[in-house]
Amino acid sequence: MAEHLSQSELDYPFKLLEYFNGFRISKAIFSACELGVFDLLLQSQKPMSAVEVAQKLGTSEDGIERLLDVLVAIEIVDVEVVQGTAFYSSTDVANLYLAKTSPKSLHDLIIYNSQTIYPLWNNLVDAVREGKNQNEKTFGLPSEEIFSAIYRSEEEMLKFMGLMNSTWVIDGHDIVTAFDLTNFKTVIDLGGCSGALARELAKEYPSSTVTVLDLPAVVQTAQQHFAQQDDTICFQEGDFFEGEIPPADLYILARIIHDWKEEKNLKLLKKIHTACHPGGGVLIAEALLFENSRGPTMVQMFSLNMLVQTEGKEHPPSHYTHLLTEAGFRDVQVCRTGKSYDAILALK
Amino acid sequence: MAEHLSQSELDYPFKLLEYFNGFRISKAIFSACELGVFDLLLQSQKPMSAVEVAQKLGTSEDGIERLLDVLVAIEIVDVEVVQGTAFYSSTDVANLYLAKTSPKSLHDLIIYNSQTIYPLWNNLVDAVREGKNQNEKTFGLPSEEIFSAIYRSEEEMLKFMGLMNSTWVIDGHDIVTAFDLTNFKTVIDLGGCSGALARELAKEYPSSTVTVLDLPAVVQTAQQHFAQQDDTICFQEGDFFEGEIPPADLYILARIIHDWKEEKNLKLLKKIHTACHPGGGVLIAEALLFENSRGPTMVQMFSLNMLVQTEGKEHPPSHYTHLLTEAGFRDVQVCRTGKSYDAILALK
Repeated sequence: MAEHLSQSELDYPFKLLEYFNGFRISKAIFSACELGVFDLLLQSQKPMSAVEVAQKLGTSEDGIERLLDVLVAIEIVDVEVVQGTAFYSSTDVANLYLAKTSPKSLHDLIIYNSQTIYPLWNNLVDAVREGKNQNEKTFGLPSEEIFSAIYRSEEEMLKFMGLMNSTWVIDGHDIVTAFDLTNFKTVIDLGGCSGALARELAKEYPSSTVTVLDLPAVVQTAQQHFAQQDDTICFQEGDFFEGEIPPADLYILARIIHDWKEEKNLKLLKKIHTACHPGGGVLIAEALLFENSRGPTMVQMFSLNMLVQTEGKEHPPSHYTHLLTEAGFRDVQVCRTGKSYDAILALK
Repeated sequence: MAEHLSQSELDYPFKLLEYFNGFRISKAIFSACELGVFDLLLQSQKPMSAVEVAQKLGTSEDGIERLLDVLVAIEIVDVEVVQGTAFYSSTDVANLYLAKTSPKSLHDLIIYNSQTIYPLWNNLVDAVREGKNQNEKTFGLPSEEIFSAIYRSEEEMLKFMGLMNSTWVIDGHDIVTAFDLTNFKTVIDLGGCSGALARELAKEYPSSTVTVLDLPAVVQTAQQHFAQQDDTICFQEGDFFEGEIPPADLYILARIIHDWKEEKNLKLLKKIHTACHPGGGVLIAEALLFENSRGPTMVQMFSLNMLVQTEGKEHPPSHYTHLLTEAGFRDVQVCRTGKSYDAILALK
């Protein structure tokens, strides 16, 4: 059971007002990313005034000054006042996670949250009422075909792939090291998208062959936009729901199960079990709820997000154990990473 | 200068991810309000299951369960699990501030934030680029006439008045007691909207006569929707920019100055100075920035909000002192309340 908000909240609702302000904090950071504020400050050799930032980014001086001041208040941008003029500079955190060029950049995750998920959540009331996603109301797209909505244009596909890529850039290492995967020599990441998680695995287990299997359009976009020199992974076009699943020692399902209803997931896992080499396994990466469904907060938010955008939800470990066992897998092990995404390994 | 986010943020951006999630927290609370969750839980004599809540509110069971679990995680709703079924009940904080029937309800503030401000902030990038409000892009309304936008329909007027009313229900007492106003026998609240702040003043100073002067449509709506039995205040229809300002001992300008450009505000203050009885004064209620413009965070957010919605901004005390002095007032006193809104008093 959650502890209550402190009693002093009854005198004045400071914490509630902070919650009400949450959307403004999100949008302020998102908008600064979209405008290129963090890239400019990183590239600049010296702190910049609001006037200089406005000139470089083609914005109003007044608007960018207010935005910069908000970023200072939440400690993402630094400021020094010299003879009455404020000069802004970046912080280590912004350089590492918010600048587009950083290898750990969350830029693409931010763009997707800002431009796609924020408007979807404007219809949360209807999502709760109807118990279904809001792609139709928000974007005029049918709610049944969730990936037709998510991949509704080349631009949207690229944005979604960027979101996935961002996540595995910060969470991928924890996922692939949650268990010792050395013995799995052929690995297929089903729906592996841009390949970011697969690359983390290939880096950690250089003797394994790692393949991303995804829809043809996704594979083509991955190779065009997310390819790396001397890439350590392969791509294969396919549809793991409708088509063949090639044999392998290990299958990865990273943020796949949470998109779909139980029946569809069970069918998929049975299909994987059939294709899997004896002694092989499946590695699931998802954000895990507690068994009592009372947290973690972020995972419960993700689950509500799944309602707004997909037909799935987040689950506690027991649900995955049940599904995997039902599909024929054994020895289910669960590892909570303490980060956003957790790992589950099961063997054939 | 702000302290930086902690160094550990460089290992994993927990705080940044929390900021990115802010819009989801806001919308979860807002949506629960819109659906009537807090009213139902308050009225219920016993804790309710998600199935019961769904039936009463006409929502999906799955959707309301996910929403309730999020509210539990952020400590706004309480839960007890009996034989595998979760039973939800309200908390003191929710009963006091989120239920519609509470005298301290923030319900109307939430509705306005959810339905009007949240969509406006989806265009923050453009607001910063253009340096102007986004009424046109968001609602198809001309950006110049800010109150034509805000009062674009009877429903919108009522929502905006509800927002103002909510604020003064929680902040009004601090504003009217920031200074001893006993000697001001006739008080006019210019743009006093629903009359909530005026009522707080009348309650604290029962020997004073308090009048709200506002646009005819606003006064009519106030009398229709916000009137109280044995009301302690009077209403007068007028336009303090275009029309006459009646003589009085004290004028209140609560959240008026921050809507407009400096020139317009100065003209208004001069007009008030002319109408004011000798020895009278003006009481300004606004959220005050620090003099160095580096906080408070919430006020900087308000200032960015003013960019998105109006033609004004928030200011530090020195700006108001300058304006008031320029308009002929003297003895400017500033009181920071420590709540959302602060008070400034100046004498003629």
